[in-house]
Amino acid sequence: MKTQVAIIGAGPSGLLLGQLLTQAGIDNVILERQTPEYVLGRIRAGVLEQGTVDLLREAGVGTRMDQDGVVHEGIDLAFAGRRVRVDLKALTGGKTVTVYGQTEVTRDLMEARTRSDATSIYHVTDVQIHDITGDAPYLTYESNGERHTLHCDYVAGCDGFHGVSRQTIPAEVLSVYERIYPFGWLGLLSDTPPVHHELIYAHHPNGFSLCSQRSRTRSRYYLQVPLTEKAEDWSDERFWNELKNRLPDHLGDQLVTGPSLEKSIAPLRSFVAEPMQYGRLFLVGDAAHIVPPTGAKGLNLAASDVNTLYRILIKTYRERRTDLLARYSDIALHRVWKAVRFSWSMTSLLHEFPDSDAFSRKIQEVERDYLTSSQAGLTTIAENYVGLPYEAIE
Amino acid sequence: MKTQVAIIGAGPSGLLLGQLLTQAGIDNVILERQTPEYVLGRIRAGVLEQGTVDLLREAGVGTRMDQDGVVHEGIDLAFAGRRVRVDLKALTGGKTVTVYGQTEVTRDLMEARTRSDATSIYHVTDVQIHDITGDAPYLTYESNGERHTLHCDYVAGCDGFHGVSRQTIPAEVLSVYERIYPFGWLGLLSDTPPVHHELIYAHHPNGFSLCSQRSRTRSRYYLQVPLTEKAEDWSDERFWNELKNRLPDHLGDQLVTGPSLEKSIAPLRSFVAEPMQYGRLFLVGDAAHIVPPTGAKGLNLAASDVNTLYRILIKTYRERRTDLLARYSDIALHRVWKAVRFSWSMTSLLHEFPDSDAFSRKIQEVERDYLTSSQAGLTTIAENYVGLPYEAIE
Repeated sequence: MKTQVAIIGAGPSGLLLGQLLTQAGIDNVILERQTPEYVLGRIRAGVLEQGTVDLLREAGVGTRMDQDGVVHEGIDLAFAGRRVRVDLKALTGGKTVTVYGQTEVTRDLMEARTRSDATSIYHVTDVQIHDITGDAPYLTYESNGERHTLHCDYVAGCDGFHGVSRQTIPAEVLSVYERIYPFGWLGLLSDTPPVHHELIYAHHPNGFSLCSQRSRTRSRYYLQVPLTEKAEDWSDERFWNELKNRLPDHLGDQLVTGPSLEKSIAPLRSFVAEPMQYGRLFLVGDAAHIVPPTGAKGLNLAASDVNTLYRILIKTYRERRTDLLARYSDIALHRVWKAVRFSWSMTSLLHEFPDSDAFSRKIQEVERDYLTSSQAGLTTIAENYVGLPYEAIE
Repeated sequence: MKTQVAIIGAGPSGLLLGQLLTQAGIDNVILERQTPEYVLGRIRAGVLEQGTVDLLREAGVGTRMDQDGVVHEGIDLAFAGRRVRVDLKALTGGKTVTVYGQTEVTRDLMEARTRSDATSIYHVTDVQIHDITGDAPYLTYESNGERHTLHCDYVAGCDGFHGVSRQTIPAEVLSVYERIYPFGWLGLLSDTPPVHHELIYAHHPNGFSLCSQRSRTRSRYYLQVPLTEKAEDWSDERFWNELKNRLPDHLGDQLVTGPSLEKSIAPLRSFVAEPMQYGRLFLVGDAAHIVPPTGAKGLNLAASDVNTLYRILIKTYRERRTDLLARYSDIALHRVWKAVRFSWSMTSLLHEFPDSDAFSRKIQEVERDYLTSSQAGLTTIAENYVGLPYEAIE
């Protein structure tokens, strides 16, 4: 088999890149290790930056998002028993975010792919990337017990942190930057109305909590917990009690509780591998970088990588601008690192760090006070939260 | 001897408080361990916030400052071979700083004190504070070989980090917050024109440097050095070469070098003791808190403590508002901590930290990039550098 762009991974970044390329008449094939049902079963965040929303619309998959997504004009920061609103819209000259679950984004993209005649092959195993530094790379993989070969011009590695793409790049070529945080997030999903119409990021001496939502009737709450905790040790009652405890009084009183649909613990990590390209292989999203979820940047960073790679590929194929591909990593990383910084800084601002000394704790407390009492401080949070601008590809 | 306010320490904070109280008709006596010549010989920073300038004028010691002080409307941050101006005036709605050496401030205050009939006793030893939690505190001290007693209503501890005032407060009453930085500043004073008309705070992989100035013909430069270095191992030539090396090329080429008038190494420390009061004793400036010099906050924080204590004492004596004195520490610390945060953050942003991991270094680099590329980021630097507003005493 032969295609122009081979895409490894049918998560939102692979599907979105595929959809944009298909629309632009660039042939592409997606290989995915899992089944479609498994991919849809992953529960992830759902706060979309304006740039992500625009890109999904450009990809022709914005109809249901525009109908069911909820535009949020602000977020709340809660700490020391009080709550400060970050007025995203006012502080950024009109920008907002849209709450629309990653599962829904993925579903919309899958349906668009099904409607197109582009090829997606699910449930493949042993994907290998060959001759990636040459002019004629190809992939091999197993499907239905048989070995196949896919020839292509370029490979987009959209296969996440554990995928084969980054692992194909020789270790001596990569610089790796990593921070493992000494805690995780225990998440609970429930069919209850959110405690507040906007998201609340809360600090408490017991740790961070987040009041998030998938829709007006489905809530997603998180608690910072030590990595030694197990989800099964947290009954719904224990979860709700601890969440109430960590929220300012008036909010805890308004919290509507109910049975959990899902409960799980995720570790928090910052990770960046540089460069994001090697020969004709281009890493996209989690394959190259991971951010802690504080700040809701994971999916949005993947979308911004897709935006960069897509626009470069368009110019490469249409205008024979072969110079641009060499710049993919630099252009993508410039924005990636700013989001990595923001995610790290929001995580640092709002979590309890068990090994922190008295001075660091006090500085953290004063940072919360300063940033929320200064228009400039609030703006630094707002402009990063709604997403810094995309770089023009010229 | 008897007075209303006994002031320990004749540095700029003790002298300024004394001058303001004397003007307001509140009797005060200053006790100082050193001679006037020694006090004047201390070489310190000289960047005055607008609030400090206003307070010095209010104290009637602004004439020479207004004549010889140089108003700076911006500072430069240099890193990665480039230079970004922080337009203090534009970013803060018109606020500026004034470069006027601490030695000059002290001289003006000393002369004003000499003109007034207020008592200053220099070269005293073994100052002790007695009955400070009662209604009738008093100090004892030795002068010219004799033991003296000074009765007073209140004691202002303006005697610096190593003074007796903070040490008089029982350890179990104090909370102490401290950060020792793993480097010092090697300073060089020379009668050479400053390399630039504004201050330059520079990061380089070899470490931080600062191009500062006392006047249009006297420069003060600093280099970050390991604490193991000794000033005598730094010839003038070695200093100038290393400074040139750490500045962007175009600046290094313009640097005018000359013989050093003084060279010394100072360690960097953040320190806060809480509360800043105990019975009738009130700590002012370095007696309660130390900041690293990055951000030029030390003298300005002392002035803001003086401002707070002075306005409270006025209302206490004139309006019998005895409730206010109990709030001194809270009011002072609220502003102190924000300046401690800013000094820590500027230090963290611009120095090399020998034990830093790859992720932290990259985050530091991205912070410099983000803060200087965002109007909001630049404003957070500017509004802190010119000084956050004083709290009204009501």
